[in-house]
Amino acid sequence: MRAITFDKRLKFDPDYPKPEARSGEALVKVSMAGICATDTEIIKGYMGFTGVPGHEFSGVVAECEDSSYTGRRVVGEINIGCDSCSLCAQGKRNHCPNRSVLGILAKDGAFADYLTLPTKNLHLLPDSITDEEAVFVEPLAAAFEITKQVGIDRSTSVCVIGDGKLGLLVAQVINLDAGRLVVAGRHAYKLKILSERGIATTLNANELKRDFDVTVDCTGSQSGIEAATRLTRPAGTIVLKTTVAERSNLAPGWLNSVVIDELTVVGSRCGPFAPAIKALAEKTVDVKALIDNVYPIEEGVEAFESAKKHGVLKTLIKMQDTGRQ
Amino acid sequence: MRAITFDKRLKFDPDYPKPEARSGEALVKVSMAGICATDTEIIKGYMGFTGVPGHEFSGVVAECEDSSYTGRRVVGEINIGCDSCSLCAQGKRNHCPNRSVLGILAKDGAFADYLTLPTKNLHLLPDSITDEEAVFVEPLAAAFEITKQVGIDRSTSVCVIGDGKLGLLVAQVINLDAGRLVVAGRHAYKLKILSERGIATTLNANELKRDFDVTVDCTGSQSGIEAATRLTRPAGTIVLKTTVAERSNLAPGWLNSVVIDELTVVGSRCGPFAPAIKALAEKTVDVKALIDNVYPIEEGVEAFESAKKHGVLKTLIKMQDTGRQ
Repeated sequence: MRAITFDKRLKFDPDYPKPEARSGEALVKVSMAGICATDTEIIKGYMGFTGVPGHEFSGVVAECEDSSYTGRRVVGEINIGCDSCSLCAQGKRNHCPNRSVLGILAKDGAFADYLTLPTKNLHLLPDSITDEEAVFVEPLAAAFEITKQVGIDRSTSVCVIGDGKLGLLVAQVINLDAGRLVVAGRHAYKLKILSERGIATTLNANELKRDFDVTVDCTGSQSGIEAATRLTRPAGTIVLKTTVAERSNLAPGWLNSVVIDELTVVGSRCGPFAPAIKALAEKTVDVKALIDNVYPIEEGVEAFESAKKHGVLKTLIKMQDTGRQ
Repeated sequence: MRAITFDKRLKFDPDYPKPEARSGEALVKVSMAGICATDTEIIKGYMGFTGVPGHEFSGVVAECEDSSYTGRRVVGEINIGCDSCSLCAQGKRNHCPNRSVLGILAKDGAFADYLTLPTKNLHLLPDSITDEEAVFVEPLAAAFEITKQVGIDRSTSVCVIGDGKLGLLVAQVINLDAGRLVVAGRHAYKLKILSERGIATTLNANELKRDFDVTVDCTGSQSGIEAATRLTRPAGTIVLKTTVAERSNLAPGWLNSVVIDELTVVGSRCGPFAPAIKALAEKTVDVKALIDNVYPIEEGVEAFESAKKHGVLKTLIKMQDTGRQ
């Protein structure tokens, strides 16, 4: 099968071995897949991953023991637990210490014609969601994780720091619940996607007051985390929505702010698929404006080059046409 | 009056001006005061404080507009809000941006014959609590802040890192509620104070498994915070109970653990006096074992030297004898 593979370098392989579904797994023919910041980190060596990257996808079930899935359009949760540890027993497969993660850790991913996943990881897609939109279910679920972890309602004021892909998704999700939302970013054309949906934005976080109940860092940068900290009211909550790639000098001054102002810092990762699918089906969140480019899989290496470019939002890789794009 | 003062260096002043109570304030004749880690930081220059340090005290009200306080034994909350900002309006005086703090920020403190505090900061002491014990109300209240911030009940497993004064108080408070508690320290003779009260302890945090719902760092050291992080189960909570004095290299690796394992980090500072007074009155927490030395105020500088010594728990300074020691 065709695949984009990484082992020290990224390449297109026209003849990579097609995976075989084991018991409990489904074989999925991938339609579209999205390049995420984690993927561009992976090809710099993050996680020491080798194989087929890619974890944001939509596809069609080709083979499955449960015939009710066969031929159906699906998306899939990316963490695969061992099913024998105490965390899996508590339903926390996302945190299983023995887990594999699609396209990230010890499991070939979505930049290929086929992938396998446990059937229980799959979610059926309604016809109203296109293949392109469905690629956003996984990152959108990560955005919904915030509202699962932190109480946000009409009495809550929230500031989202960052106007990258993740920031734009997080902002739209939080806007469904929060009483007040301001998004601080650095790119007028990205913030416009939000302001067109009635969300307040600013290019200058310094003009904001320190009165937000919750701030969400979607940058993973020292300056982003510092801005979030500066804008959070005492006894408020900072959500860290992405890992930090760069070296940083945050501690100990930053930790002391956390103690003195009694801040709560919440790490937030993968999230629930159901509300993400619902939001796309009901069109309460818009992801189409985030798509910059769609490349055929043969040009997957070029797609990565595009995705790494400053200012590009989402780059997709297309494996097949289901007629639902 | 007699006072211990700090301005570049610490000294005993036999003739420091006696403070005058303003409207709404009480004049308190100090009986005993405790030297806290914050005090030993202050005389290294922390907070840029000059004047009379000291914020853990017991005393007797000498003058007060509310005569029901006059002559009564009291302890006092240390944060003095401006009473005109939005945080004060919400009852969050501890976080008032314009606050002064007894013996820490723009307000003379307790290592003196007299101090003043707003009457509303005072709490009456029952006769069953001695002056020496009452000095611990303030740090014990800080320990109770944890159980106010984080849900701890018989289903919760907690690990406290650190066997200093704060760790020993925090451990005893958490032991009132938690289902399982282990305290990791470095000093057998300090941990013995806890094991004699039936609390599990270890000198080797490395022997503990990563299965605690909540960990509490009472060390303020990089190694303490790292141990807390390593012992907290995924989606668990780390409480930071003290500021970090040293330079540290925690971020970004530490921040990434917070994100990937979806940890919650809670900064925790001053706390509620009422449960601390109740615990001392009912003797559910023992503080006597923590007292190493009591110095007369004339020897206050020597008291600080003692307090800084490795292995010393609590050093007290005595101003007057109320017959309740």
